[in-house]
Amino acid sequence: MAAATLLLALAVVALGSGHVEAFDPNPLQDFCVADPTSKVHENGVACKDPAAVVAEDFLFGGLDKPGGKTSKRFGFTANQVQIPGLNTLGESHVHLDVVPGGVFPVHYHPRAAETALVLEGSVYFGFVSSYPDNKLYAKVLRKGDVFAVPQGLVHFLYNNGTAPATLYASLSSQNPGLVLLGNSLFAGALPDDLVAKTLLTDAHTVQTIKANFRRS
Amino acid sequence: MAAATLLLALAVVALGSGHVEAFDPNPLQDFCVADPTSKVHENGVACKDPAAVVAEDFLFGGLDKPGGKTSKRFGFTANQVQIPGLNTLGESHVHLDVVPGGVFPVHYHPRAAETALVLEGSVYFGFVSSYPDNKLYAKVLRKGDVFAVPQGLVHFLYNNGTAPATLYASLSSQNPGLVLLGNSLFAGALPDDLVAKTLLTDAHTVQTIKANFRRS
Amino acid sequence: MAAATLLLALAVVALGSGHVEAFDPNPLQDFCVADPTSKVHENGVACKDPAAVVAEDFLFGGLDKPGGKTSKRFGFTANQVQIPGLNTLGESHVHLDVVPGGVFPVHYHPRAAETALVLEGSVYFGFVSSYPDNKLYAKVLRKGDVFAVPQGLVHFLYNNGTAPATLYASLSSQNPGLVLLGNSLFAGALPDDLVAKTLLTDAHTVQTIKANFRRS
Amino acid sequence: MAAATLLLALAVVALGSGHVEAFDPNPLQDFCVADPTSKVHENGVACKDPAAVVAEDFLFGGLDKPGGKTSKRFGFTANQVQIPGLNTLGESHVHLDVVPGGVFPVHYHPRAAETALVLEGSVYFGFVSSYPDNKLYAKVLRKGDVFAVPQGLVHFLYNNGTAPATLYASLSSQNPGLVLLGNSLFAGALPDDLVAKTLLTDAHTVQTIKANFRRS
Amino acid sequence: MAAATLLLALAVVALGSGHVEAFDPNPLQDFCVADPTSKVHENGVACKDPAAVVAEDFLFGGLDKPGGKTSKRFGFTANQVQIPGLNTLGESHVHLDVVPGGVFPVHYHPRAAETALVLEGSVYFGFVSSYPDNKLYAKVLRKGDVFAVPQGLVHFLYNNGTAPATLYASLSSQNPGLVLLGNSLFAGALPDDLVAKTLLTDAHTVQTIKANFRRS
Amino acid sequence: MAAATLLLALAVVALGSGHVEAFDPNPLQDFCVADPTSKVHENGVACKDPAAVVAEDFLFGGLDKPGGKTSKRFGFTANQVQIPGLNTLGESHVHLDVVPGGVFPVHYHPRAAETALVLEGSVYFGFVSSYPDNKLYAKVLRKGDVFAVPQGLVHFLYNNGTAPATLYASLSSQNPGLVLLGNSLFAGALPDDLVAKTLLTDAHTVQTIKANFRRS
Repeated sequence: MAAATLLLALAVVALGSGHVEAFDPNPLQDFCVADPTSKVHENGVACKDPAAVVAEDFLFGGLDKPGGKTSKRFGFTANQVQIPGLNTLGESHVHLDVVPGGVFPVHYHPRAAETALVLEGSVYFGFVSSYPDNKLYAKVLRKGDVFAVPQGLVHFLYNNGTAPATLYASLSSQNPGLVLLGNSLFAGALPDDLVAKTLLTDAHTVQTIKANFRRS
Repeated sequence: MAAATLLLALAVVALGSGHVEAFDPNPLQDFCVADPTSKVHENGVACKDPAAVVAEDFLFGGLDKPGGKTSKRFGFTANQVQIPGLNTLGESHVHLDVVPGGVFPVHYHPRAAETALVLEGSVYFGFVSSYPDNKLYAKVLRKGDVFAVPQGLVHFLYNNGTAPATLYASLSSQNPGLVLLGNSLFAGALPDDLVAKTLLTDAHTVQTIKANFRRS
Repeated sequence: MAAATLLLALAVVALGSGHVEAFDPNPLQDFCVADPTSKVHENGVACKDPAAVVAEDFLFGGLDKPGGKTSKRFGFTANQVQIPGLNTLGESHVHLDVVPGGVFPVHYHPRAAETALVLEGSVYFGFVSSYPDNKLYAKVLRKGDVFAVPQGLVHFLYNNGTAPATLYASLSSQNPGLVLLGNSLFAGALPDDLVAKTLLTDAHTVQTIKANFRRS
Repeated sequence: MAAATLLLALAVVALGSGHVEAFDPNPLQDFCVADPTSKVHENGVACKDPAAVVAEDFLFGGLDKPGGKTSKRFGFTANQVQIPGLNTLGESHVHLDVVPGGVFPVHYHPRAAETALVLEGSVYFGFVSSYPDNKLYAKVLRKGDVFAVPQGLVHFLYNNGTAPATLYASLSSQNPGLVLLGNSLFAGALPDDLVAKTLLTDAHTVQTIKANFRRS
Repeated sequence: MAAATLLLALAVVALGSGHVEAFDPNPLQDFCVADPTSKVHENGVACKDPAAVVAEDFLFGGLDKPGGKTSKRFGFTANQVQIPGLNTLGESHVHLDVVPGGVFPVHYHPRAAETALVLEGSVYFGFVSSYPDNKLYAKVLRKGDVFAVPQGLVHFLYNNGTAPATLYASLSSQNPGLVLLGNSLFAGALPDDLVAKTLLTDAHTVQTIKANFRRS
Repeated sequence: MAAATLLLALAVVALGSGHVEAFDPNPLQDFCVADPTSKVHENGVACKDPAAVVAEDFLFGGLDKPGGKTSKRFGFTANQVQIPGLNTLGESHVHLDVVPGGVFPVHYHPRAAETALVLEGSVYFGFVSSYPDNKLYAKVLRKGDVFAVPQGLVHFLYNNGTAPATLYASLSSQNPGLVLLGNSLFAGALPDDLVAKTLLTDAHTVQTIKANFRRS
């Protein structure tokens, strides 16, 4: 498994999913298949000897069945598409199942735009712009709908129906990153009073929410 | 309908589909929703006044039902995802149905890499590298498989099974372009003797094939 | 005043500041000074006739005195550096004053990395990574310190001292965008139950905080 | 000899030439001269210690005399300009001799635009656009003419005169790649029936042409 | 004639030539042929309606005969290759004739790397690095030699032989810019004492040289 | 100390300072902190294991006190901001002190635009465009003024007042490079007659100035 997809996969384990499409540097060869054994750390991931590359390096399977990492807390299962051959190609993908009542909570990707295709069910899906200020652009999506989220903007999906929903998301970077607003505020080491000031609330409320994030 | 998606859509009408993901210039604002009424021609597409942008500008629907343009010649129907809000966001998408025996014939995208997800059926899918020379990287894909094609390389899909196949493709440019090798050689105005020399064949064979391309 | 700087300025009015440095497309001429009168919307901002460009187009003054927009809620004054000549040049800047106890609350820039130089006072300054997961990288900065924040990551500054603090921030885009996590969650139109699920809290807590954001 | 130029050189040996100009990532230092001994595979080519760099690393000579690899099949000799110092600089070049009746057959470069200058003789030179669909833009070029080909589009040159022709081509990538349409279709491992369907012909015709490509 | 090539052409009239290859933003369509009649100023040049584009938009001729603008002062004639179709394609070219004893004086291009091919004669050609500090990388080039200059570095060519020399240069930007060190210091409005301090000389010497630049 | 900052630091030792902001390739991970121990030479700098990264990797201090390298010749002290964490983030910074009568002599950065903020004192600051030809855009800057310089253009600052001046400059590349026109012409190995022809002067004047550059 390539380092880049591994990074996102780990982020996904911790909290959620990532999605798909971006603005990475152009490739300088046909392919640069990620080499998981390389000890070199660089911008992106070192690649295998081209002579050792095989068709399987461009394949990921199994999205027809539930798979990936499950977040019981939020009610989703995220299956990160791990294709070593996507290294240097400027995209990545995630398959997502969300139970009724589940959310892929409010989040953003620091290095990518995203689109999502609804494969099954229905979700409330949207993003919030930075300009105009905090304006919501959202729709109830049904099977066969595609919705786009600009680079780096806050977005979410909410299965507020009664059937499971399935989506396939595409992000415009091989390693888009994933920041969940709740976890960023309450699951890390930000000081309580800073979070309280940011949210115009008090330290007690912050501590109560933090306790919820500590419970698995 | 935005100019960029229109361009690809027209190419699709003529012959086929496009697929998915690329390396466009970074965006310089939250969004630059394509303005179909603009008279300005620039690198990319001019955008609407941000104040006039609505959630619908980021949505495209109907991929759950057959739709788009059909090529009886090749046996596919391609539904180009037309989202004005994808202007400046570096990606585009196509939904593709292929009948048994049908192909999305050998082609490439001048400005994008691509991935394809199989939603239904099974296809033989692959690409040919420029280095190593003309090496084939291909797999039979089944439902739930994703396969990646590097930027600008020749690729194809062939439904050599007995059931219809459906795919969702993502391209790493808002306007990846589409070049079908057969049409490029035989449906345009390339001189017969040039094509014959390129294919190590004779002018008679070239004329015979050209006649096939002239029949709808 | 150029459109790009205007956009960020308006965001700043609403809530805070922006800072500085990024990855915009390369310039294709010596300069493309933003033209505030242009009716063309494009990726970035249309430019003045080069023959009309003067030295003043590259200048912004007055950072030696308090200025800009004040947020009483958070305790800062942000002075956006508005230089029309920075259009296409890939950077922007903000001067920031923070009272004791004030914060520039937890936020990120969708299209830029940032550095900040402390000109006066002392602040607790840091960012949270997406990988490793929600890890805090923070320091107490004193006069003469510079701290860097990677592209798109959540960061903050907190004047937990007794003297006013002044900073000069640089962002790696001409229009980096600004998203304040609190405002994004509570000042816009996100549904209460979605926010509650995102923060592992209840709708009542969400409504209480929303009410605080409605008070100026 | 640098790896990047080696790759193209090998492609040229196999089938033809490459030409010149593109859109690689920006350099991050004065130079990054390709190091042919490096074992690190990355996006592009690892570089020599700057202290070991000499003027010869930026030089390639001998284009005043016929040289390079000859394709008897197509009637050209291609001399790839191999300059290790062009690594990270976003361009490469080829010198080309074409006998009367010879062609540089229909091909494209997956990662570059190209211009060609006619040094001697006369050629029919052109490209085919993807939009408008398969439109031919071509001219008879004479000594002293320069013609430009957009990124990734199909193009060719045909010496249909009676004197030898010589050209100097520039490509906008350090490693543009080269795909010859004939070889891609007939010299690799694409299944006969796929090629037949792509070209609206039959398997017998495909096998006949393939046999021609197998003869050296 | 396209605006971008016009700009460089004007620079060439004033003083010299430009050469060839760079790092412009990627194209977002097959071509964006420069429209000299457009009133829109943007990053780069607005383009013609694609339907109005013809093969001539990609052609420039006449380099087989002396042409372009002559600098008697420095002893060169520079013929700027003006191809409207190169807009968005990331390259430009110049043909250069230099008399014995003539120079293309010490200069650099703010937005491009360059290579030069010697077509006739012999020249002393080289560049100076910024790191290592002011190190000279230079060679006597003969007919058939190509030499590369990294992006933005100071370079020159000097015909110190007895025969005329002719070169063809390629620059990695559609509008690389041209700065001649002598003209920048002495032909503009830089204060005498600033120039004197920069060159560790006195105002009198500066005034003497300035007088030489004022004579045509 | 990271290699990239080291390179600029060395350039600064030799001759001057660098300033700040640019157009580097996008980052492909949260951070890629420069690893000074890496033996790999690549485009940019190899990075540390992310697990070993600490907050100190993003910090540089001490700009409140005079520091850095002093050029007695020109009358400035330049303190290069060395932050390993800025690797891949597309910016760098310099703190500059200039004595009355001192200059940061005429120079340019091959890979960056720049802005400068005046922290103390007053300076005459400006740049020269390549188009329009050698036009000066300059202002007397006072405390609190910011001035912008486009990518790669010649610029300078001159403290022609009676008090010391202090500035903070930002450059749009992690490794912008620095070329001082005087040193480039007179401190390296350019032939005397080439320099004389470039400056429309004689070899004797060139030798006299060269002698001044040889004296420390």
